[in-house]
Amino acid sequence: MLLLTTAIALALSAIPCCLSIWPIPRSFDSGNQIIKLSNSFDISINFTNPPQDLLDAVARTKDAIQTDQLGRLIVGRGSSDSEAFGSANTFHNLVLTIEQRAPVVRPIATEAVASLDTRDESYSLSVPLDGSAGVVSANTTLGLLRGLSTFEQLWYTYSGTIYTSYAPLTITNDNPAYVYRGFMLDTARNFFSVSDIKRTLDAMYLVKINTFHWHITDSQSWPIQIAQFPELAQAGAYSANQSFTPEDIQDVVSYAGERGIDVLVEIDTPGHTAIIGASHPDYVACYLSDWITFAGEPPAGQLRLADATVANFTAEVLAAVAKSLPSTMFSTGGDELDTACYSADEPTQMILNETGRTLFEALDDFTATTHGALHTLGKTTVVWEEMVLEYNTTTLRNDTIVMVWISSDDAAAVVQKGYRIVHAPSNYFYLVSINLKSSFLYMLIAVLFKDCGAGEWIGNDPTGNSWCDPFKTWQESYTFDPLANISSDQVSLVLGGEQLLWTEQSGPENLDSIVWPRAASSAEVFWTGDTLPDGFDRVGNISEALPRLHDVRYRMVQRGIKAIRLQPEWCALRPRACDG
Amino acid sequence: MLLLTTAIALALSAIPCCLSIWPIPRSFDSGNQIIKLSNSFDISINFTNPPQDLLDAVARTKDAIQTDQLGRLIVGRGSSDSEAFGSANTFHNLVLTIEQRAPVVRPIATEAVASLDTRDESYSLSVPLDGSAGVVSANTTLGLLRGLSTFEQLWYTYSGTIYTSYAPLTITNDNPAYVYRGFMLDTARNFFSVSDIKRTLDAMYLVKINTFHWHITDSQSWPIQIAQFPELAQAGAYSANQSFTPEDIQDVVSYAGERGIDVLVEIDTPGHTAIIGASHPDYVACYLSDWITFAGEPPAGQLRLADATVANFTAEVLAAVAKSLPSTMFSTGGDELDTACYSADEPTQMILNETGRTLFEALDDFTATTHGALHTLGKTTVVWEEMVLEYNTTTLRNDTIVMVWISSDDAAAVVQKGYRIVHAPSNYFYLVSINLKSSFLYMLIAVLFKDCGAGEWIGNDPTGNSWCDPFKTWQESYTFDPLANISSDQVSLVLGGEQLLWTEQSGPENLDSIVWPRAASSAEVFWTGDTLPDGFDRVGNISEALPRLHDVRYRMVQRGIKAIRLQPEWCALRPRACDG
Repeated sequence: MLLLTTAIALALSAIPCCLSIWPIPRSFDSGNQIIKLSNSFDISINFTNPPQDLLDAVARTKDAIQTDQLGRLIVGRGSSDSEAFGSANTFHNLVLTIEQRAPVVRPIATEAVASLDTRDESYSLSVPLDGSAGVVSANTTLGLLRGLSTFEQLWYTYSGTIYTSYAPLTITNDNPAYVYRGFMLDTARNFFSVSDIKRTLDAMYLVKINTFHWHITDSQSWPIQIAQFPELAQAGAYSANQSFTPEDIQDVVSYAGERGIDVLVEIDTPGHTAIIGASHPDYVACYLSDWITFAGEPPAGQLRLADATVANFTAEVLAAVAKSLPSTMFSTGGDELDTACYSADEPTQMILNETGRTLFEALDDFTATTHGALHTLGKTTVVWEEMVLEYNTTTLRNDTIVMVWISSDDAAAVVQKGYRIVHAPSNYFYLVSINLKSSFLYMLIAVLFKDCGAGEWIGNDPTGNSWCDPFKTWQESYTFDPLANISSDQVSLVLGGEQLLWTEQSGPENLDSIVWPRAASSAEVFWTGDTLPDGFDRVGNISEALPRLHDVRYRMVQRGIKAIRLQPEWCALRPRACDG
Repeated sequence: MLLLTTAIALALSAIPCCLSIWPIPRSFDSGNQIIKLSNSFDISINFTNPPQDLLDAVARTKDAIQTDQLGRLIVGRGSSDSEAFGSANTFHNLVLTIEQRAPVVRPIATEAVASLDTRDESYSLSVPLDGSAGVVSANTTLGLLRGLSTFEQLWYTYSGTIYTSYAPLTITNDNPAYVYRGFMLDTARNFFSVSDIKRTLDAMYLVKINTFHWHITDSQSWPIQIAQFPELAQAGAYSANQSFTPEDIQDVVSYAGERGIDVLVEIDTPGHTAIIGASHPDYVACYLSDWITFAGEPPAGQLRLADATVANFTAEVLAAVAKSLPSTMFSTGGDELDTACYSADEPTQMILNETGRTLFEALDDFTATTHGALHTLGKTTVVWEEMVLEYNTTTLRNDTIVMVWISSDDAAAVVQKGYRIVHAPSNYFYLVSINLKSSFLYMLIAVLFKDCGAGEWIGNDPTGNSWCDPFKTWQESYTFDPLANISSDQVSLVLGGEQLLWTEQSGPENLDSIVWPRAASSAEVFWTGDTLPDGFDRVGNISEALPRLHDVRYRMVQRGIKAIRLQPEWCALRPRACDG
């Protein structure tokens, strides 16, 4: 028995540690030898006139390598590595180079918002064993940035020595399988400060998430100050301290851009707009009416979409926000219209009768007006899936991007209509519970999916369980297959996906722990794609992924991002010892 | 429609706000008028030689009232209250008085660890409307402390003015329905610092939780330094920085005692002890063997209980820890013995054969030895339910306290055997998932209860769902009935209950948000009991409780405890508007 025990213990400790990068590069050749980082380590740029945001990114990378101070996740946290320090070479310099130089090397922030079909995040990276210079090469500054985020993850600290255990390392043409890799934050149910968002962007950068989907308003609050429409935030923000000034928005956009992150702002319309009634009561149907009858969650109220005045007002609001944003995309939402509300709303019924339209024909007109204003600004419009699958909106432009949220099963139907999609399925990617659905739809979803995981928040439900229990674990998210039921000729319509935090029960207090590291699951799903570098399927390969996810989680914590523990530390230090 | 809408809006805003105290006093008479706190407000003590920890508690209360700066949870956060500031009276002084003075007024810390049958936490409190002095009266300093925690919750701040909206207020003989109201933290699966624990004790004080059940060791790590057995932490702590010195333990005990909190330390034995094998491999069966076969979770290993040397060693370890603790209680654990491990362990089988005992007869001897050492120190021993219901241990003293965790349904069976119980049922009070059960027991529990809510943590389960999903919401915990299936003549055996955080997937990063305010649910269940002050049943009365729970949550956040949001802020400011 004792002999057996010892053998098992040795076997566990002898498992070689994989390259702990998240997301894992699509192709690499990694050694397991140690080189130390020179005290005078520097990163040099071998082309002229590098943009300022690349210089800033280099400075941040150099700083992170010094300050991470992460002990490697093995028993002893690197004490066994230290035996090789005496004989190990020293790494002095990393060189950044642009391979196929464009006429002008553009800033990271510019490349980060390039149109989806031209965006280039690819890079190659080498860290030789002999102490000669390493290289990150790319076609764009955005690619260089992705290389830097990989490079940062190579380094551990033991007793004052910074080193990597993965030398020699060669990563050749690492590039994302999908162009859209997002994270969505709802800043309306509960408010989050600019600093909360920046901390989140830091974590997104680390795992190469490239889109911040900012669900900025909803029925509960309007936290965005718009110069032309000051009344919206004055009446609709929880308080002046709980709203974003135009400068705040630009601050977030700049911070994101420098980290290679596109900011996709969503002003959800015509539903999810009750709070507009606080300043424009005539524009909102069912304002503060019984929510159980007229809304998916409290408070009730949605824009009187049939009213041309309301449509024009909405278009002006959207354009006022969109015109100052560099992204090519803007989301108008379009989910969860409550038709019972409109049926009971006399002004809506009067207009529909006068104009001889059905509600959804009026929605076609509303959409033409609001999307038209955004198209004039050069924006590609983004909507939730109901606009296509439920309302059959006829006035969507062909290049509209559709977010699939109700179920992953709906993706194929949207693609079959020819639209590009972003996967945001509640049954894989919802980080916490979302609005309660009223009526039959709710019951159906509850029975079909049983997702999300922080319980019910409606006040007087004694069980407190949610339609979207249980918790969507990182493992479940990680098994997502982006191409399930998608025919091969429609693969190009799948842009990628995102994990989402609806904030009925979240706030700054639990932001980090409810999001990280879970939201890193989809970052790898959509960067690495379906096949791991070793040729094995990624889907379902939890054992391979877990040690790397531990690693990036512990690194996040070193950076002040309070990511949740995945296992007892005993397991984190012993890869696969806690597999079942 | 518009008229109807307005009427509803008015109705919502007109709902009177209840006295927002958590836990709600068992008997009170509250007004809804405003008095302001004087700038020179003071708390005076009308008896001689008050103990230092009472003086400290008074200073903390005065400080908290100044620094909480909590805006009342109504629309405008108190702007409507401010209209009455001009005509409102000013409150200058709160007097603390001991009603039935004992020969000596004892410190709070002494009263906090008084034996359960003599502990006295009752108090009365008055805050007159006319500006005359308020009074907290009690039989003990511990009662005065409970009065102070109530008093602190009365005060809001608007635009620099501190005021209460509950005047005049009279609370008469508020006292707990149950003597044991606990919170359990596991500091072994993942480590928590002394400052994490102190912050938790602050929150416990606020909601009158009076027992910190410190599950200090487990199979994954041994974070307690014991002078006589230094090897245990040297080999078993995750690192020297991740262990508690004797001074740390005393620091926690003192901090807790000053806040009226008894510290019940648990050294779980003979199971949940694999890590002892790191320093004493001969004492541990199945050490690091295949956990799926030999343990409920990784790593495998449990004390060779049949070995008298091991029993004596264990008794010495327990005594070494217990002797320096002021509590009358000490827990030896006793849960989840893996019999397959002992069956396969040759040394154990050899000893059982030699001594002609069954495993459970050997457990009787082990228990007699270990509990005996604790009884010698004057401790009352505490165990998990299996010791009574599954192993039928014959050597438990009659005054043993039994914690019921597998299911609330097991409480009646333990009481019927004449033991006192603490409710800690996984199906109501587990704040997050616990160790995976192997074998049939696991399957059975999974089917029966489906609790807890952060998913599975075993490495290679692609769904990642846990036996204990979904999340145990505060609402579900709040509906717990301590006397379900307990016959009236056995009611006195029900000491109370506790919520529990097992930390497979928790650490300092999410401690506050996973615990608070959910752990406040049981605080009210066991303080207020089954009947609310208005005579209505507490059980299931979520609507009444929610606004008060919001209030204490927002107050916790003001105190730096990152309690999770229960609803969108829109709902928190509008009591009952988000009820279904």
